[in-house]
Amino acid sequence: MLRFGVIGYGYWGPNIVRNLRALEGCQVVGVCDQSAACRKRMQGSHPGIPVYSDYKELMTSPDVDAIAVITPVWTHYELAKAALENGKHVFVEKPFTSNSAQGEALINLAEQKKLQIMVDHTFLFTGAVRKIQKLLAEGTLGKLYYYDSTRVNLGLFQHDCNVVWDLAPHDLSIMNHLLHEDAEAISATGQSHLNGHEDIAFITAYYPDKMIAHVNVNWISPVKVRTTLIGGEKKMLVWNDLEADEKLKIYDKGVDVKSQEGVYNLLVSYRSGDMWAPQVEQVEALRLELQYFVDCIKKNEKPFNNGCAGLKVVRMLEAANKSLAKRGELVYV
Amino acid sequence: MLRFGVIGYGYWGPNIVRNLRALEGCQVVGVCDQSAACRKRMQGSHPGIPVYSDYKELMTSPDVDAIAVITPVWTHYELAKAALENGKHVFVEKPFTSNSAQGEALINLAEQKKLQIMVDHTFLFTGAVRKIQKLLAEGTLGKLYYYDSTRVNLGLFQHDCNVVWDLAPHDLSIMNHLLHEDAEAISATGQSHLNGHEDIAFITAYYPDKMIAHVNVNWISPVKVRTTLIGGEKKMLVWNDLEADEKLKIYDKGVDVKSQEGVYNLLVSYRSGDMWAPQVEQVEALRLELQYFVDCIKKNEKPFNNGCAGLKVVRMLEAANKSLAKRGELVYV
Amino acid sequence: MLRFGVIGYGYWGPNIVRNLRALEGCQVVGVCDQSAACRKRMQGSHPGIPVYSDYKELMTSPDVDAIAVITPVWTHYELAKAALENGKHVFVEKPFTSNSAQGEALINLAEQKKLQIMVDHTFLFTGAVRKIQKLLAEGTLGKLYYYDSTRVNLGLFQHDCNVVWDLAPHDLSIMNHLLHEDAEAISATGQSHLNGHEDIAFITAYYPDKMIAHVNVNWISPVKVRTTLIGGEKKMLVWNDLEADEKLKIYDKGVDVKSQEGVYNLLVSYRSGDMWAPQVEQVEALRLELQYFVDCIKKNEKPFNNGCAGLKVVRMLEAANKSLAKRGELVYV
Amino acid sequence: MLRFGVIGYGYWGPNIVRNLRALEGCQVVGVCDQSAACRKRMQGSHPGIPVYSDYKELMTSPDVDAIAVITPVWTHYELAKAALENGKHVFVEKPFTSNSAQGEALINLAEQKKLQIMVDHTFLFTGAVRKIQKLLAEGTLGKLYYYDSTRVNLGLFQHDCNVVWDLAPHDLSIMNHLLHEDAEAISATGQSHLNGHEDIAFITAYYPDKMIAHVNVNWISPVKVRTTLIGGEKKMLVWNDLEADEKLKIYDKGVDVKSQEGVYNLLVSYRSGDMWAPQVEQVEALRLELQYFVDCIKKNEKPFNNGCAGLKVVRMLEAANKSLAKRGELVYV
Repeated sequence: MLRFGVIGYGYWGPNIVRNLRALEGCQVVGVCDQSAACRKRMQGSHPGIPVYSDYKELMTSPDVDAIAVITPVWTHYELAKAALENGKHVFVEKPFTSNSAQGEALINLAEQKKLQIMVDHTFLFTGAVRKIQKLLAEGTLGKLYYYDSTRVNLGLFQHDCNVVWDLAPHDLSIMNHLLHEDAEAISATGQSHLNGHEDIAFITAYYPDKMIAHVNVNWISPVKVRTTLIGGEKKMLVWNDLEADEKLKIYDKGVDVKSQEGVYNLLVSYRSGDMWAPQVEQVEALRLELQYFVDCIKKNEKPFNNGCAGLKVVRMLEAANKSLAKRGELVYV
Repeated sequence: MLRFGVIGYGYWGPNIVRNLRALEGCQVVGVCDQSAACRKRMQGSHPGIPVYSDYKELMTSPDVDAIAVITPVWTHYELAKAALENGKHVFVEKPFTSNSAQGEALINLAEQKKLQIMVDHTFLFTGAVRKIQKLLAEGTLGKLYYYDSTRVNLGLFQHDCNVVWDLAPHDLSIMNHLLHEDAEAISATGQSHLNGHEDIAFITAYYPDKMIAHVNVNWISPVKVRTTLIGGEKKMLVWNDLEADEKLKIYDKGVDVKSQEGVYNLLVSYRSGDMWAPQVEQVEALRLELQYFVDCIKKNEKPFNNGCAGLKVVRMLEAANKSLAKRGELVYV
Repeated sequence: MLRFGVIGYGYWGPNIVRNLRALEGCQVVGVCDQSAACRKRMQGSHPGIPVYSDYKELMTSPDVDAIAVITPVWTHYELAKAALENGKHVFVEKPFTSNSAQGEALINLAEQKKLQIMVDHTFLFTGAVRKIQKLLAEGTLGKLYYYDSTRVNLGLFQHDCNVVWDLAPHDLSIMNHLLHEDAEAISATGQSHLNGHEDIAFITAYYPDKMIAHVNVNWISPVKVRTTLIGGEKKMLVWNDLEADEKLKIYDKGVDVKSQEGVYNLLVSYRSGDMWAPQVEQVEALRLELQYFVDCIKKNEKPFNNGCAGLKVVRMLEAANKSLAKRGELVYV
Repeated sequence: MLRFGVIGYGYWGPNIVRNLRALEGCQVVGVCDQSAACRKRMQGSHPGIPVYSDYKELMTSPDVDAIAVITPVWTHYELAKAALENGKHVFVEKPFTSNSAQGEALINLAEQKKLQIMVDHTFLFTGAVRKIQKLLAEGTLGKLYYYDSTRVNLGLFQHDCNVVWDLAPHDLSIMNHLLHEDAEAISATGQSHLNGHEDIAFITAYYPDKMIAHVNVNWISPVKVRTTLIGGEKKMLVWNDLEADEKLKIYDKGVDVKSQEGVYNLLVSYRSGDMWAPQVEQVEALRLELQYFVDCIKKNEKPFNNGCAGLKVVRMLEAANKSLAKRGELVYV
């Protein structure tokens, strides 16, 4: 029986508690939040579970095996560090940390203490991403040309980070998970209009072998869009996460190039065929993810969305911020 | 009666000839194309109009008042120059010229000869763009925050230019037309996969007063997208040019900011109201544009889509290409 | 404090219990279900509330003021009758009863006992229906021409009724609620393919003054559709209940008729204008409905969705079934 | 060389003339229209072809082999009869004739004269219908359960027929073409609001073996819909003719029935799998159809869309009108 302490019961925390309680082989032994309103809400929904205002009680309790840190990013480092130092495994909300130095320190600490870190990149556990991963592994799309994601809506403004740190971690973690190679360099542009943090931004990531990725994030869009295009040599894919039933569409479309005499006469011809929408498994991604965390701890295995995976995303975010400040200048990751 | 010679009867030329013939007060006195197949097609559709293989016959003919140059961009300068030197007004396909020096030279020549140049930015004459212009003029959207266009599809590969020069002129000319200020600087990223020219590209244009524009162009997308988001302080607009009936949607959505003690406590609150899809006039844009050209020549007035408007787009394309080569580095226009 | 007993904790019952518990001024004092699995699920979610297998315990308890009957339709009469006889108000799942005689008997019984009956036509409390009702009341659409609803999906097959009794009560109750007049006659066609009950059916209801309504219900559709068109003299409305944000669209479109010499020369001309999507309130309809029930009981007022409203729907369902058996023959309601 | 005379140059006639001119092995030797405006339009578009106001000139000309009758339905009989009597093959606009007696007479006349009749059911030659036919022939959908078509829009009001005769011929001809059996009986409901002809109607056709078809036609809809659902035992199909790229979608969805003890316990379980959108050929249907007519005449073969096919549609329209008048009463075809 793995015993969890959960720190943070704001927007996302309730989902963590609900899912942890539903899992076999684990239990929630305490929840902490600084806000009295959140604590009251927690008590109403889960009468039997003790609620604390000071996180140290969970940290130092011998009845806690793992800590879930579901708080704002600027608190992640301190909380996760305390947890690791007290011998607890850590599940941390994304993005992992506020900077890469913090991420490295936590990874080292976990290594020393032989504890597991999992960063909550929930999207990696959705039916859509797992299906895309399978399709890529099977070579369905062929060599990849590009990954182009649009993630915009009238979003909650964050006080402590810009739209890149708020929304792009989803895309960056998915890209890191799906693509075999790491991004080499990043160029980002954007603008802040309201509270000093960029509310609209465009990130380009250059990969080896002419692969290119682009992420369009925007907090001030009138419509919600969650669409990713993945173009490959053989086939192309559109993932519209807002579709209820046909989230993924695979197009038997593409371009064939025949070299002739001279570049100018390159014959580029079009292929156009059927479209196919594979069924996508409909399970709650967070449940799968937490189950996987419990399993990893039991088997003493590192999850794929471990501290290093979280750190890789943080490094890309840092590069994006650096480039943003220089209005698009290329920053090597 | 304004007498037109048309050079180029490939993809777009037939539309020019058909529309010119349908206009009152103008006629097509000759069409030229180097390709025998194109000339044959022209003769089949318009039996009475003479067809030439050498453009000089039209250039030097005293029966021609204006020349329409509907050929690849690298030929525009030479053809338009010959036309102006022979005292003909010129209607030139977009983009205006291959570089800004050529554009400047043509503008000067037209000035000397007191002739008109019109650059074929057809989109400026669509019902959608005219409606957006009216809404902006009336202040419906308030101060603008961003302009974000996606223009992707499995497109015809060009041999002599990249996807930026092929597709972005539409967006750049619309942006120049709609926005009161000029772009200050451009950052562009992209990649070429097939024939050495970029087939996917992302262009950011920085404007004064925190306005930002972004254009996503792609020749290797499995789906066709023609969507532009325009975000303003008061309202926001979505223009989906692929919709048959509701091309424009105006959202009474937005963000209100109340300053409190310190930036951290800025209160950003959301507004969400009705959506409204104004009827958009359905006229053939090219017809309106050519009628306007004829009128401008008769009244001896410069069209708004004149050589200078064409040159402004070319300068932005040059800046985008320069930035592309340096992977996103900011280039001042 | 209004004390509720809930009978039936299958598909819909949990929503009733959850919403009743969240309301001020009422409490759930017991839940009954014949299925041990349902009872176990109930106990897990609401540890403090007693659970019964025999509904009589709730019926006869002096601590119960009102009974919610959330069971299959063929049990409604017996359960509601027992509740009323024991002096309890009744909230009954739709459709009200298996036949109109049962409905009449319950209405009379409630009348005698001075108790309230509410039939759970939840849709009447959605933001969309309330907005449509407001628009009709304001005369926005003008005189109504037609009401045309499509409600199809790959649905749960019922063992005790056909698709008409399963899905059409939604539409019929909405029609009765929105339209000022009652349907005069019904023609219904359909077919059963699998278990002897019609799984696809088409219902036409004739109203006074040339108003016509049509309902398309289907359990074996590959796609889910929830779309209603309402055509009026002045404006027309499309309600797509599957849209997240723009459920209602009002079109300034229509037809103008000018009488000329003779019917043959009637000039029918088209009007086409803007479209407008009003914001629709997003509250849980069931919560509003239950709050309204509690209020009606406290004020001793009949709800608009009372037994008579439920009976009217049952009479239309009976007429539809009769017509179905005669393959479309008109049946007067 | 097959020489055509075309009668009627209103809305559809220009498409006939344009396509006939583009075909190999046939020519248009004359066009007739009573309206001076239509004749002028014809002369402008096709300067070389003689234009007549009296159809008899074409009928009696020895230079005409076939007559295309592209006029209102109430003139079809007289014109087609004259053509056949003068030894000309006939291509007749849909619906074939105003009543079945006329259709029979024309079929007999053509038989005697050894001439061909083709009824212009253009939809049968679209890529979508040809693909559906292929899928049905291959058994992809299994035994069919239903055919459900919605064909609504703000339509042109006809003075001489109702919406059933105007729009339903498309669906009826497609159903007759695709389904192996004939409809046995029809029930139709509807209403006229403006000029005495029904402007909204709902047609149910009963087929052998529990197959059922339904057609929803409406001239006063604010939105255009062209959607057909075809449900089969193995798979289901949605045909949205307004989609540019994915007109057909085939769903691997359905219902499996396992009989158990007693009907009540029939186990109906759901299947849900991938969706697949086959590429649909994009050729102009009318061109294919006219080519086929020319080929049939040359080979002296009856086309499948011959007089008998046209008559079958007329008989269904008659049955629908009869049922409409009796508000849904079943009428045997």
